[in-house]
Order: sequence, then C-alpha cells, then structure tokens
Amino acid sequence: MFVQNLPPKSIFVSMTESPTRVEAFSDGVFAIAITLLILEIRVPHGDHGLWAGLVALWPSYIAFLLSFAVILIMWVNHHELLRMVRAVNYPFLFANGFLLLTVTFVPFPTAVLAANLATPDAKAAVAFYCATFVANALLWNLLFATIVRGGLLHANVSAETVANVRRTYYVGVLVYMLATALAFVRPALGLALNASLCIVWIRLGYRSESSASPSRS
Amino acid sequence: MFVQNLPPKSIFVSMTESPTRVEAFSDGVFAIAITLLILEIRVPHGDHGLWAGLVALWPSYIAFLLSFAVILIMWVNHHELLRMVRAVNYPFLFANGFLLLTVTFVPFPTAVLAANLATPDAKAAVAFYCATFVANALLWNLLFATIVRGGLLHANVSAETVANVRRTYYVGVLVYMLATALAFVRPALGLALNASLCIVWIRLGYRSESSASPSRS
Amino acid sequence: MFVQNLPPKSIFVSMTESPTRVEAFSDGVFAIAITLLILEIRVPHGDHGLWAGLVALWPSYIAFLLSFAVILIMWVNHHELLRMVRAVNYPFLFANGFLLLTVTFVPFPTAVLAANLATPDAKAAVAFYCATFVANALLWNLLFATIVRGGLLHANVSAETVANVRRTYYVGVLVYMLATALAFVRPALGLALNASLCIVWIRLGYRSESSASPSRS
Amino acid sequence: MFVQNLPPKSIFVSMTESPTRVEAFSDGVFAIAITLLILEIRVPHGDHGLWAGLVALWPSYIAFLLSFAVILIMWVNHHELLRMVRAVNYPFLFANGFLLLTVTFVPFPTAVLAANLATPDAKAAVAFYCATFVANALLWNLLFATIVRGGLLHANVSAETVANVRRTYYVGVLVYMLATALAFVRPALGLALNASLCIVWIRLGYRSESSASPSRS
Repeated sequence: MFVQNLPPKSIFVSMTESPTRVEAFSDGVFAIAITLLILEIRVPHGDHGLWAGLVALWPSYIAFLLSFAVILIMWVNHHELLRMVRAVNYPFLFANGFLLLTVTFVPFPTAVLAANLATPDAKAAVAFYCATFVANALLWNLLFATIVRGGLLHANVSAETVANVRRTYYVGVLVYMLATALAFVRPALGLALNASLCIVWIRLGYRSESSASPSRS
Repeated sequence: MFVQNLPPKSIFVSMTESPTRVEAFSDGVFAIAITLLILEIRVPHGDHGLWAGLVALWPSYIAFLLSFAVILIMWVNHHELLRMVRAVNYPFLFANGFLLLTVTFVPFPTAVLAANLATPDAKAAVAFYCATFVANALLWNLLFATIVRGGLLHANVSAETVANVRRTYYVGVLVYMLATALAFVRPALGLALNASLCIVWIRLGYRSESSASPSRS
Repeated sequence: MFVQNLPPKSIFVSMTESPTRVEAFSDGVFAIAITLLILEIRVPHGDHGLWAGLVALWPSYIAFLLSFAVILIMWVNHHELLRMVRAVNYPFLFANGFLLLTVTFVPFPTAVLAANLATPDAKAAVAFYCATFVANALLWNLLFATIVRGGLLHANVSAETVANVRRTYYVGVLVYMLATALAFVRPALGLALNASLCIVWIRLGYRSESSASPSRS
Repeated sequence: MFVQNLPPKSIFVSMTESPTRVEAFSDGVFAIAITLLILEIRVPHGDHGLWAGLVALWPSYIAFLLSFAVILIMWVNHHELLRMVRAVNYPFLFANGFLLLTVTFVPFPTAVLAANLATPDAKAAVAFYCATFVANALLWNLLFATIVRGGLLHANVSAETVANVRRTYYVGVLVYMLATALAFVRPALGLALNASLCIVWIRLGYRSESSASPSRS
C-alpha cells in the first residue's frame, strides 16, 4: 500500500519483503518441471508392433514415475519449509534459486536413466540419477542453514523443530549418497533405496499429521 | 496471519490447511499439459508439397483436439470437485498428485495415437489411449473416496450429491473400459466413444447449470 | 466464504461464479504458448560456419517475432475483453476453451512458416499461418457473441461499446481472410498484412488510451 | 469492485490499471523460460560409455548454469523495478513485452553456446550469446525510459534513485558489448565477463540490502 522512499543504493530490496512471490515463482518452476518429464518419453518406432514398443519403454515409465513422485514431494516439502519462514533476504533468494536449479535439472537425469536402465550402462545412469539428488539434498541443507542464520524463522518455531528439520535434511544427504554408492554395485538396489526415501517422506507426513491433529482441532 | 507453535513432529502439516495452493499448483499442471500437446505435432517434410504434408497430419489434429478437450473438461471438473472440499489432508495431496500424474502423462498417449492412427497399429494405439483414461478415471474415484473418507467435504454437501458424484465417476471408469475393449475390435468406434464422453460431460454441465440457476438468482 | 447447499444435479456450477479463475488459467496458457515458441528454433549444424548457419535461420526469427507479438497482443486483448464481463457461464467456458485451443496451436503454424518461408512452399506456409488466425479471429467473435447472448456483460457497458468491439472483431476475420488469400499470390504481402494487423491493434490501444485518459484523471 | 462506464473508444484500457497482472504474466514467462533450459541438454549416445558421454556434455552444463543464473537474476531485478512503478500504460506494456521476448529467446543462444563451446565455432557462439544480452540490456533501458517518460514512477522515488538505476542499466549495455567484442578474440574471457556481471548484480543486491536494513527496522 505504501512504498518507502528508497535510498539510492537500495533499489534491489523489495523481493525480500514478499515471501509469497518467491513461493509463487517456485511453485511455477515445480509445476513446469513435473509436467516437462513426459516430453522425455518418445513414441516407439519398432519392427515388432506397437505393444512390444510400448512395453519396451518400461525404463521410461519407471524413471517418469520416480521423478514425478520426487518432485511432487519436494513441492509439498518446499511449502512446509516456507511456512516456517517470516521473511526472506538475498542469501535466501539465491539459495532457493540454486535449489530450484536442481529441480529444473531433474528431467535430464530422468532421461539418462530411462535411456540406460536396460543397458550395461545402468550403473552409471542410476549413479548419475542418485547423485543429482545428493546435490539437491545438499541445497535443502544450505537453504535451511540460510534461513536459520539469517534469522528468518518465525519466532514460535521451537529449537526442537529446527533440530528436527536439520536432522531430517542431513539424513537425506547421507541416504542419497548411500544410494549413489550402491548404484555402482547393484543399480536396482540403489534405485530402490532412492525410491524408498519417497515413501519415508510420505509416511513422515502422515504420522506428523496424525500427531498434530489433536492440537489443531 | 497467525502461525501456531509447531510441535517437533508436525513440521509437514501446513499444506493441509491451504487448499487454494493445491488448486493453484493443479491449475498450473493442467495449463502446462494442455499447452505442451502442440509440441507433438511435427512440421511435415514430404516430397508431395506442404499441403499434402499438412493434410497427412490429420491423425495428429484429431489426437490434439481430443486431448485438448479432455484436459480442458478435466480442469473444469477439478475445480467443481474442489469447490465441495473444505480442507485437504495428506492422503488427499497424494491422491491428487497421482491424478495429476495421469494428466501430465496425456501428451504421450496423444503422440502415440497421432503416430499410429493411420497405420495397422491403430487398434493398439487407440486402446493405449483409452486405457490412459481408465487409469485417470480410477484416480478420480480414488480422489473422491479420499475426500469422503477423510471427512473433507463441506457440511452442506448433501448425501445425494455425494452419491451422484460417485455414480458419475464410476460410470466414467466403465465407459472408458468399454472404449478400450472396443478399440481392439473397431478403433474408430473406441475413439468415438471416448470423445462422446466429453460431450456427455459438457451437456451435463449445461443442464446442471440450467437446473441450478433458479436457486442462484 | 459461504457455500450454498448444492442441489443434486448442480455439482458442476461454481466455475461460472469465479471469472478470475478462468482468467488465471488463460494467462497461464498464453504465457506458456508464448514461451514455447523458441523451442521451434533449432541449433544450426551447417558446413559453412556458425554465423552462416545463424543467418540462414532468418525465417525462424521472423516467424518467432511475429507469433510472439501476436500472442502478446492477444493476451492484452483477452484481459480487456474479460474486464467487461461480470460473470461466466458454461457456453463461455467452452468458447474461451476453443479460443485457447487456437492459441496453443500457434507454435505449430509458426514452425511450418519458419521451415518453409525460404522455400517454394512459402505460399502454402503463409496461407496456413494466416488461416490459423482466421480461425482464431472467428473464435474471438464466437466468444464475444457468447458473452453478449448470455447477458454476461457489466450493466454499464454501453451498446455503442458492444457494437464497436463486435465491428473490430469482425474486421479482424476479414483482414485475416484477405491475408490468407493474398498469401496464395504473394506470400510476402500476405505475411505483411498479417503483421500490420498487430500494429493496428497496438495503435488502437494507444489512441483509445489517450482519448480515455481525461475521463480517468 | 466498481467498473467505470467505458466510452466507446476506450475498450482497451484496463490492463493499464492492474500492474499486478503484468507482473504475474512476466513471472510466468520467467519461470517457464528458466525451466525450459534443461530441454536443450540431450541424452548422450556415445561409444565410450555413459560417463564419458556425460563428461563430454560440459559445455551444456556451463551454458545451462550461466543462463539459469542470468534469468533468475533478471526475475529478481524485474520485481525490484516494478516495485518502483505505480501504474502502467500501453508503451510500458509493449516495452515490457519486448523485454520478455529477449527472455524467452535465451534458450536458443544457450543451445547454440552448448553445441559450439568445444568447437572452432566457439567465438561465434559466445559472441552470439553475449549479443543476446546486449539486446536484453538495451530493452531494460528502454523499459526504464518508458517508465520515467510516462510518469509511472511512485512519487517518492527520488531523482537520485532514478539516476542510479539508469546508470546501472547503461553500464550493463556497455559491459555486454565489451563481452561480445571480447568473444571474437578470446571466447573464454568474453563468457567470463558475461558471467561476472551476474556476480556484480548479486553483490549489488547484498550490499544495497545491508545499507537499507537500518531504515527498514
């Protein structure tokens, strides 16, 4: 409603006062990245009929499903995280930007995984796929550290909650690193571990909700 | 306005309190999926001149038109459904996510249909296309069941309305299954049945609106 | 805030009460269609060096610039039109949906134009490109007729304004038809006429704004 | 809430009264352009194994990272700029549209850069990439000139701030021109200069924030 008189050097400030705008932009990026995944599945042109061609695309379906689930869960978690934030600053904007970079990157390792899962290069493909999420998990930690260090948390977020989030994000990095290492030995296991993390996150959400519901009603 | 003190285990809860955000994200996915459809129509490079090449793309135009209409109608229906919802919970978020997965998947069966409608593989292509909507229709049922079971409906939504929606969604599954089965025998008929469902839905909308207008004015 | 008790048959009504949602969805489609245009310009791989390859893409640049300008202006006009609307009904939703269909279709004739503008097929390519906008112009007329017939205009929109909009949309169809016909004889002229319509629309905007500004300040 | 009686010739006015809508549209274009960048990185199909293929894509990663950073920063700056604006007019709408045109164009020079950075055509590719940002920087100047000339700035934006923004945008043009010229001699240096501008902008943001924070708290 009212715009302050801006001192000469502070022409780049307002974004830090509107966290909703960062959220809307992030939402757009999540929605677009999740929808672009399908472009990596190409129409089969084989000699053995269409059904055989569609069946042979099973690595693409697995890669699509897995990446869709991961981006969906990341989108949910991004909102949960931003809900604890009262304001954003410049370091936040760029930490969030780097996080989004790894989100928009996901269609590429997904395509690499789809193209190589049924080939001898499966190990490299799964390792590359999991490594992307190591980078992504590190950036969640960076974003949270930026939030805490910048004093951007709501006053009523308890130290216990902060410790809990930090621990969860930290474990995420470790599990994705383990999945990456496992991929070099048994790619199927590495991918399964990667996928299992989705389920853990979903279950975490369910449980937290049940335990929280008494306090809300 | 006021953020409650979050207990340690409930850091993943807020999304369940802002249905508008789920709606905005879903809207984004619908808008992107409907706009990506055109990327599957490729510029013709034939020997018989451009007009012949453009005419030969008729299966692509049919596939584009049909999928555009279906996603548009799904978008309308998604809003109508969410209008009956007072809050969302975690099961809702993931049921909705799975539904969106089948929406973002649509460009792929559309491309398969376009590439094979004028070939001997038309049966398989139409069946695959219709089967996608069987999965989609099942997920509408799952989403509605999740809403009802979770007690997420507005208090003033009558049992009659619930029964009516449930029946409509249930019939949707059956008709798409019939279209899929028909595709194996007569692909053109299967596709026509699939398309006719759009018209039924639109007409349903028109009629419901006429019958509802007295009560609104 | 308050949701009416819905009678059994009117479960598909609410969209007709929130024009802003239709607008947001349309905005999304316009923004995505305008951004997808660039995907049709492919990296050149020639034998004569990169500069020669980039210069040889001039038909792509022309097609990109023209379609970008047209979609941008359509987006502006869409808002101007919806500003006169107080509510939407089902016929509106589908007339608007068909209009958006022609908007999402634009990247395809744009790619056809880019691929053929420097070839003997230029006549067909320009005619196809212009014909797309004949269809688009017809749908603007359909949308406006749907608005007027449905009584969806704000009460204070004068009969003179309605007649003026109708005339403008009607002339649009005629000019695009003329451009299409011209394309068969002199493609460059057809395309120039098509482009000139953009300039007419922009100038119209400027002039209307100048004439309107006294009444606003 | 209240729509004025529109005089016959002013049917294209309202957009000029809702800067938030222009901002939302621009946000959408920024979010889509930044997410489309990944589509230009193609899955490697080499003879030396997947790792070798992934490593050989280093020019693509550099191009992706650089363009992602540039678009992210442009998005931040676009908001900062619009924050100083109290209203928009038609010249603004089209100046902003041309600016967005150069933003949606970015994926193309990014792909050209990625395809040629490791080839003898690197000079041309880097020059073309930097030249895109010369055009972009010129349009930032045009947009700001349009804002100032149209009297669209908030009353409390000081002459000093205006001079400062103008100078910053002007220097942007010069540095990108220098980067373009440098690209013809030493492509790596031209690209480094281009990238360094990102860092300058980020640092500018940090500093301005620190100097501004006393006045905000």
